[in-house]
Amino acid sequence: MHNPQLNKNGELQHLLTIEGLPKAVITRILDTASSFVSIGDREVKKVPLMRGKSVFNLFFENSTRTRTTFEIASKRLSADVINLNIAASSTTKGESLLDTIDNLSAMHADMFVVRHAESGAPYLIAKHLNESGQSHVHVVNAGDGRHAHPTQGLLDMYTIRHYKGDFSNLTVAIVGDVLHSRVARSDIHAMTTLGVPEVRVIGPRTLLPGGLEQMGVRVFTDINEGLTGVDVIIMLRLQNERMSGALLPSAQEFFKSYGLTPERLALAKPDAIVMHPGPMNRGVEIDSAVADGPQAVILPQVTFGIAVRMAVMSILAGT
Amino acid sequence: MHNPQLNKNGELQHLLTIEGLPKAVITRILDTASSFVSIGDREVKKVPLMRGKSVFNLFFENSTRTRTTFEIASKRLSADVINLNIAASSTTKGESLLDTIDNLSAMHADMFVVRHAESGAPYLIAKHLNESGQSHVHVVNAGDGRHAHPTQGLLDMYTIRHYKGDFSNLTVAIVGDVLHSRVARSDIHAMTTLGVPEVRVIGPRTLLPGGLEQMGVRVFTDINEGLTGVDVIIMLRLQNERMSGALLPSAQEFFKSYGLTPERLALAKPDAIVMHPGPMNRGVEIDSAVADGPQAVILPQVTFGIAVRMAVMSILAGT
Amino acid sequence: MHNPQLNKNGELQHLLTIEGLPKAVITRILDTASSFVSIGDREVKKVPLMRGKSVFNLFFENSTRTRTTFEIASKRLSADVINLNIAASSTTKGESLLDTIDNLSAMHADMFVVRHAESGAPYLIAKHLNESGQSHVHVVNAGDGRHAHPTQGLLDMYTIRHYKGDFSNLTVAIVGDVLHSRVARSDIHAMTTLGVPEVRVIGPRTLLPGGLEQMGVRVFTDINEGLTGVDVIIMLRLQNERMSGALLPSAQEFFKSYGLTPERLALAKPDAIVMHPGPMNRGVEIDSAVADGPQAVILPQVTFGIAVRMAVMSILAGT
Repeated sequence: MHNPQLNKNGELQHLLTIEGLPKAVITRILDTASSFVSIGDREVKKVPLMRGKSVFNLFFENSTRTRTTFEIASKRLSADVINLNIAASSTTKGESLLDTIDNLSAMHADMFVVRHAESGAPYLIAKHLNESGQSHVHVVNAGDGRHAHPTQGLLDMYTIRHYKGDFSNLTVAIVGDVLHSRVARSDIHAMTTLGVPEVRVIGPRTLLPGGLEQMGVRVFTDINEGLTGVDVIIMLRLQNERMSGALLPSAQEFFKSYGLTPERLALAKPDAIVMHPGPMNRGVEIDSAVADGPQAVILPQVTFGIAVRMAVMSILAGT
Repeated sequence: MHNPQLNKNGELQHLLTIEGLPKAVITRILDTASSFVSIGDREVKKVPLMRGKSVFNLFFENSTRTRTTFEIASKRLSADVINLNIAASSTTKGESLLDTIDNLSAMHADMFVVRHAESGAPYLIAKHLNESGQSHVHVVNAGDGRHAHPTQGLLDMYTIRHYKGDFSNLTVAIVGDVLHSRVARSDIHAMTTLGVPEVRVIGPRTLLPGGLEQMGVRVFTDINEGLTGVDVIIMLRLQNERMSGALLPSAQEFFKSYGLTPERLALAKPDAIVMHPGPMNRGVEIDSAVADGPQAVILPQVTFGIAVRMAVMSILAGT
Repeated sequence: MHNPQLNKNGELQHLLTIEGLPKAVITRILDTASSFVSIGDREVKKVPLMRGKSVFNLFFENSTRTRTTFEIASKRLSADVINLNIAASSTTKGESLLDTIDNLSAMHADMFVVRHAESGAPYLIAKHLNESGQSHVHVVNAGDGRHAHPTQGLLDMYTIRHYKGDFSNLTVAIVGDVLHSRVARSDIHAMTTLGVPEVRVIGPRTLLPGGLEQMGVRVFTDINEGLTGVDVIIMLRLQNERMSGALLPSAQEFFKSYGLTPERLALAKPDAIVMHPGPMNRGVEIDSAVADGPQAVILPQVTFGIAVRMAVMSILAGT
């Protein structure tokens, strides 16, 4: 099957998932982001790359935080942004998803940033645009169900490259609720493609999906074992709101077994960095002493996230 | 009574309803829209006609779809747009509608785009502005109760003119829930003014308002009869959410009697076009085979709608 | 204790409260606002002073009216504005206030406009930014609990200066629900600093806080006495929604004892002006004949309010 996120020349047409994305495409995004990182420090934080383009933030699921990052990225590229909370809108009038897309596309949309509770929705939209002669309209997946959150994965890669220079000698541990985490999936695919030699996943059996070993990942249920000697620790948010109670004893219990404390961090390499996609549950998956400590790069991740989103959007808009 | 939407020179001051709007004014809007249609295809989809002007979207009734079209039109004219969902705002603090208007006007508003569940609200606002020395502030009716939706009527006229060239030889049929449709009212007034020789209305007696014949309209309760030989078919949305159950048997029943199927469409002229204001209820008022077929111009309507709104706003701003 | 709203050079770093703000700082804001008042009448109502700057409207409490004034002020300064209704966002995901601030700050925010139901929240944010090396990010208090609403206080001072020229010979009366009014507190501090020789407060004992006399204010429970000979009357909104029923008999009762009627207004100087922060409760704290009469300057207050907010924001952005 043709990869719907690449056009016939192998260029990025949509950003749906990191799975199957060629290394050259990922590297180009990271390199482009690099040129945008410094913009944030300038007096005028704008470039005219998307002037007059219309970006629609289509949020079928509420996420102020993610919507904000895309809104800022769009505005710094000088695009016009329209925020649509679709849950409260035409779908309540019984219009189908694809009719909504065709409508907005007819308004000369240039880009849809799509957040959806159902896995595959951005893929469905991109496929429809491609097949109905609207392939000039681009889709960015801003998180779909448990499936993917590619811009988060890309900003994680940017962060790792920024602090570690290179992927080829690293051991990276992902800790926590992997089962419900689209971030974990996106990160694993990205690291595999970029050549990280050892990716570890650490968590209780009940929060680990099947098939991890087949993805080339080493699985640990003991956090002390798993963290030993790693270069990078990616903590996952405990998705309280997504979980049915049966899988998890309690937040305190989780912290006792899998929370990142200074003691556990000491098992990693001395220059290991600590990442988290936010928002953090302090005292649940991460101790405040670590979150605010010198090895945490959680706020730089946010800064890089804007640059990475600007990179993705400007590359798509130029395709 | 003086027509409150025209100033002393007969120029458009507010757009409240198509009823009573001179043919020259309507034609000027359509001609201006024509110059904006091509902007949507440009690399930079913006013109500086309203740079520094403040447009307030005053939505007393939620309508993401209509709000979006005005927001895009405003941004493509380089205006600053402020979205106000008034239901959730000062009226809950007990402030009167006209106090709210005076307040926003004191912030140097240039234009109010007003959507209201009550017929006449935009008229009331325009009258107040005119009488209180604030006639430099313009009002656009974005739909008021069952009364009018003039920009929808204008974009329908634009669409007909685009495909048929001229109004003077046409037979146009409006099909469905005319009783609850402000679109139907706006269309009938526009077509009468523009000289469409035969306007037909098709629907069950319970969904047809009185007084249609006096408006110069031919009434049909049999869709097959009504569609025979027409040039243009305007399907109306079945306003499920506005209807009390008594008027209508069921959606399936309605489709059986009044849904636009390929067979019924075949009764119209071979080059007849099919319009719909959206959002469509597929399988209720329109069959998907027709909605997605070669005679449907439903998506072009959306595209023209942006240009028509830009035309209305830029004409008002220049008055 | 160091005043957290001033930097080491005594320049405005944040605007948190008028209390303790030096006269020179207040006067500079009013003078700067003066230069912005005329912008509202221009064809293009924009200046490029904050082009490329990112302003975040952080509304932890809903207030469309106040949010709108800051949004307009930001856009007229050419800033990019991001509206965040935080109640519905990350705090529901259990993230702390300061984590949210750090996150947005990491997105290269330049300014936070903060509205919060709790007194002191903007102060807490400003303190955190100052102490964590983020003092280039500025905070504007857009109303915190019962504590302060400094931009309202400043626009009131602008209005008084506009109509009365000078503060040094004035008698000003503040009438109504002083207990729940952050506007009253901000006004009293401003007038004390600017040298208004006589400030009166008029209201029922149950709606007057303690300590007024210590602030140098004369207290009246009889409105006729209190209004006699004043130059300026500042009516307060009866905060129905904030009050527990016990303090107040009824709206009609209140109007009978403290409503501003034409008869009572006649007790003030003939050229006295009437102010109100809005939204007004007509027939509760103010008679419509007064609200719409020649001495009311309630709508000019709104106009000046935009200019004052532009002044505050541009001064902060230039620090």
